[in-house]
Amino acid sequence: MRPRCYTALHPFLKMRTTLRKLLGIGLVSGVLLTLFYWWVPGDDSTVDIGTRHGDTIEKLLEKTYKDILSSYPDISYHIKDNVAGHLALNMCVCETEKETIRNRLPYSNLLFPRVWAQNLQLAFLGNNEDPEGVKSRRSQEYNGFRRRTSTPSDVLIVAEANSPLQYPTQGVEVRPLKTIIIPGLGLKENPRSRHMVNLSAELGVFDVAATVDEVTVIGAGEKSMVISSPLLLSLNRQLQFVTYTNTLFHPSTADTVQFATDRHRSVFTIKVRHGIIPKLYNSRSSGEYNISALVTIATKTLLRYDKLQELIDSIREFYPTVTIVVADDNQHPRPVTGPHVEHYIMPFGKGWFAGRNLAVSQVSTKYVLWVDDDFFFTASTNLEKMVDILEKTTLDLVAGGVREVTGYTATFRHTISVDEGGDEGDCLHIRKGYHHAIEGFPNCVVADAVINFFMGRTDKVRQVGFDPRMARRGHLEFFIDGLGSLHIGSCSDVIVNHASKIRLPWTKTDNDKAYEKFRYSLTTDERKASDEVYYFKNRFKCMSAN
Amino acid sequence: MRPRCYTALHPFLKMRTTLRKLLGIGLVSGVLLTLFYWWVPGDDSTVDIGTRHGDTIEKLLEKTYKDILSSYPDISYHIKDNVAGHLALNMCVCETEKETIRNRLPYSNLLFPRVWAQNLQLAFLGNNEDPEGVKSRRSQEYNGFRRRTSTPSDVLIVAEANSPLQYPTQGVEVRPLKTIIIPGLGLKENPRSRHMVNLSAELGVFDVAATVDEVTVIGAGEKSMVISSPLLLSLNRQLQFVTYTNTLFHPSTADTVQFATDRHRSVFTIKVRHGIIPKLYNSRSSGEYNISALVTIATKTLLRYDKLQELIDSIREFYPTVTIVVADDNQHPRPVTGPHVEHYIMPFGKGWFAGRNLAVSQVSTKYVLWVDDDFFFTASTNLEKMVDILEKTTLDLVAGGVREVTGYTATFRHTISVDEGGDEGDCLHIRKGYHHAIEGFPNCVVADAVINFFMGRTDKVRQVGFDPRMARRGHLEFFIDGLGSLHIGSCSDVIVNHASKIRLPWTKTDNDKAYEKFRYSLTTDERKASDEVYYFKNRFKCMSAN
Repeated sequence: MRPRCYTALHPFLKMRTTLRKLLGIGLVSGVLLTLFYWWVPGDDSTVDIGTRHGDTIEKLLEKTYKDILSSYPDISYHIKDNVAGHLALNMCVCETEKETIRNRLPYSNLLFPRVWAQNLQLAFLGNNEDPEGVKSRRSQEYNGFRRRTSTPSDVLIVAEANSPLQYPTQGVEVRPLKTIIIPGLGLKENPRSRHMVNLSAELGVFDVAATVDEVTVIGAGEKSMVISSPLLLSLNRQLQFVTYTNTLFHPSTADTVQFATDRHRSVFTIKVRHGIIPKLYNSRSSGEYNISALVTIATKTLLRYDKLQELIDSIREFYPTVTIVVADDNQHPRPVTGPHVEHYIMPFGKGWFAGRNLAVSQVSTKYVLWVDDDFFFTASTNLEKMVDILEKTTLDLVAGGVREVTGYTATFRHTISVDEGGDEGDCLHIRKGYHHAIEGFPNCVVADAVINFFMGRTDKVRQVGFDPRMARRGHLEFFIDGLGSLHIGSCSDVIVNHASKIRLPWTKTDNDKAYEKFRYSLTTDERKASDEVYYFKNRFKCMSAN
Repeated sequence: MRPRCYTALHPFLKMRTTLRKLLGIGLVSGVLLTLFYWWVPGDDSTVDIGTRHGDTIEKLLEKTYKDILSSYPDISYHIKDNVAGHLALNMCVCETEKETIRNRLPYSNLLFPRVWAQNLQLAFLGNNEDPEGVKSRRSQEYNGFRRRTSTPSDVLIVAEANSPLQYPTQGVEVRPLKTIIIPGLGLKENPRSRHMVNLSAELGVFDVAATVDEVTVIGAGEKSMVISSPLLLSLNRQLQFVTYTNTLFHPSTADTVQFATDRHRSVFTIKVRHGIIPKLYNSRSSGEYNISALVTIATKTLLRYDKLQELIDSIREFYPTVTIVVADDNQHPRPVTGPHVEHYIMPFGKGWFAGRNLAVSQVSTKYVLWVDDDFFFTASTNLEKMVDILEKTTLDLVAGGVREVTGYTATFRHTISVDEGGDEGDCLHIRKGYHHAIEGFPNCVVADAVINFFMGRTDKVRQVGFDPRMARRGHLEFFIDGLGSLHIGSCSDVIVNHASKIRLPWTKTDNDKAYEKFRYSLTTDERKASDEVYYFKNRFKCMSAN
């Protein structure tokens, strides 16, 4: 009786040999291909990415910090008001400037512009049918934002005094999943029968790149490693070879390392991140600045083709080959042509910031120059000066001046600051003025917001972006969104002219009237949209300005 | 004889009193107005922003670090190859995988995809008429980039052992031009006749928020302050009130503080920066996800209006009101209409990434979904799943799978890493695969590059951007530009279908032929442009992939 398997295989065994070989190869190939489809290299571990890492360490550090601060309760002190008054209390309040005699003088508003404050919370929630819902959603969105942006490398760590531990407190970095030697580890204590240190981490493992005689290493390759030796010098030599390998992947985070003896503990962080990938531009220019290779001019147009054409003609007088990008959301678009002119047609009325965002999204040169469609160039519109300051300093953006037909040149320089305000949101402060002058560039200063005639590094301007939610109006919103990421300058000697806005009613064309109606009549919805941007999007409770 | 001034003023004095008053007021007003035009609040100091701050401290720290590392030369060690081999040497080399027996097996490329490497330096400079000029320009651009992006808070600092100083090593921040109390300062030494510490900074000044009896403070309000007392406890109480005020404006920098006694010195940094301003979206949805309020679909089209219409129709079957943004660079654009469809017309052939950048620049919802114009939705194209993972984790972008007509679903998961390579540039490594699975989301993993069907946080996608310099082709470039800033996932259970690419030659329409000719025939110029992006823009010398 043949075995069952033999009976099953019988037809196969009866086939000719070559056919069998072919079928065999086919079967093996099929298996291999199936394996290939399903097998993709990857770590089989599962990671929870819904929560932040490092919470345990943070609580530990908080407790240590509280202990430090609560010492010396018996020693009294006398507050120094002029200093204590400047301390940020994390609870900013929304206050208009009080009435004073100074405010009541004639022309006082010119010399001492009064500060007004708007309580955004009242303004936005007051008109809303579901204020509690809005507050709750904003809080939720903000928590998600904090979860994504906070990092263990911002947590307060205090170094213990009189600790025998030597360790790096800053500057240790490793690229994700890579290995480094941890620099600067050491133990400086009196001789003992056995010197011992331990290291522990959360997102990686330790090892040693070299071993030293008479030193014991336990836990090499793990998250917790102990090094000990009767000889202090040998232990310290060993500590020069301690390595850290990041094993839990994250593109940008930090691991908190504890380095301790039996009686002392130190804590430091290792940043886990890629290096910043540069975005460099090959401008192919040497000697004088080749404006066409370095700069693209960007603008948005609506209902003012005549002024736009004047702008383009005036640019061509001085910069015949510079590329001009035009974003156009007219209802009935007309061709805008010419060499080096790029015309983009948008849905009707899509909006001001949408148009600005579109225009800068198309720029392929190192710098982008923003102009309004009713500007025009003159001999004072010296773009080389703007390029020069951007090439030679750390500025990301530099504005010029806009000269009105009256001769008055506006620079709209403002400084911006934000005070923390707790759960209700922060307080935004906008003041006329600038921070300081720039050495080597007379007529130039540093500020936080400037006028709408500026040249910026294309990638930095795009990174901040012009929020398409700002449909009719918007200017400061760009600078608020850019706070902290843009280093901004303003030079009063690079001037563009502004086509006259001063028109007697009977001289206005139909175009002018249509434009004014569209541009300057803010509906209630649009005012609400503006409040929403400050209250919800940027999470302010108060805004003050002068 | 009347004085000359009287003679000069005579006509004025003869005028009537009221007229005199009016003229007087006019004169004063004129002076005030002139003053107003010229006086804008601002610090009169001039600051050099062409160079980095903190160079002096860095040199000092470098020297300290060198001393630490050169100790113990007499103690020998034995290298542990398997660990030392993983250390980043900062001098990556460009190597194709060696020929081995494994590589020669049939199907070896399926099971063990071979790694190829391209020496970008040779490829790009080899075809260039001015290689030295290119290298020099790239080096110059890179130096400018480093000057703008490096900060004193990345410099290596090592804490001294057995120092009586207690101080914060991490987590101290102040907003520009504001004041904080420096937490955690202390001195723990044996009794002496006089205990003394000094503090010094470069970008700000010290003071005390409160004074303590029997403690002398010299230099309050200056960059260098000395605190001394015969009583150690009082000195420590005083140290609890030390304040730091940033005085040299910069939107994002760090000040290096030295805190020392006569025999010991510690160094720590205070970050000077604005808080990150959030960009929150009020999606007005609760309970189920309102896709139209949360997501905008973006695509770019060229020569495939028929496929585009099929895509739009298929979307409408499942998401009737979601906004669809279409960027169109056809030579002869045709209307693309319908409710919630936004059509943008670009200059002919402006390009693939330019179109992608345009489309995402117009999105005003929290998330943006990228689709190619030849995709179509089915019941498996479950956008709610994508929104769910983005809402609940720290992912910035999640891709799905693209199903071909054969039934094969591609996810194109890759990991990316960069090794430092010195002055010649870095080495870019791209490998098929992913990092790890995601807890709570079966079928989802974390990777660094994914397929072209993904949903992302609009602001994060825009911050990375699609470089308009990539005209014909481009995919990985987006993920390379995003390395370190995007946390990327891939879920194989959200699927979009791909209209068939498999066409027998005689069934191709004129459209298909025109598209293939345009899309797939890379000219020499375009190949050079691609090399330029990797070699110059991102500063790589080598690229390897499998």
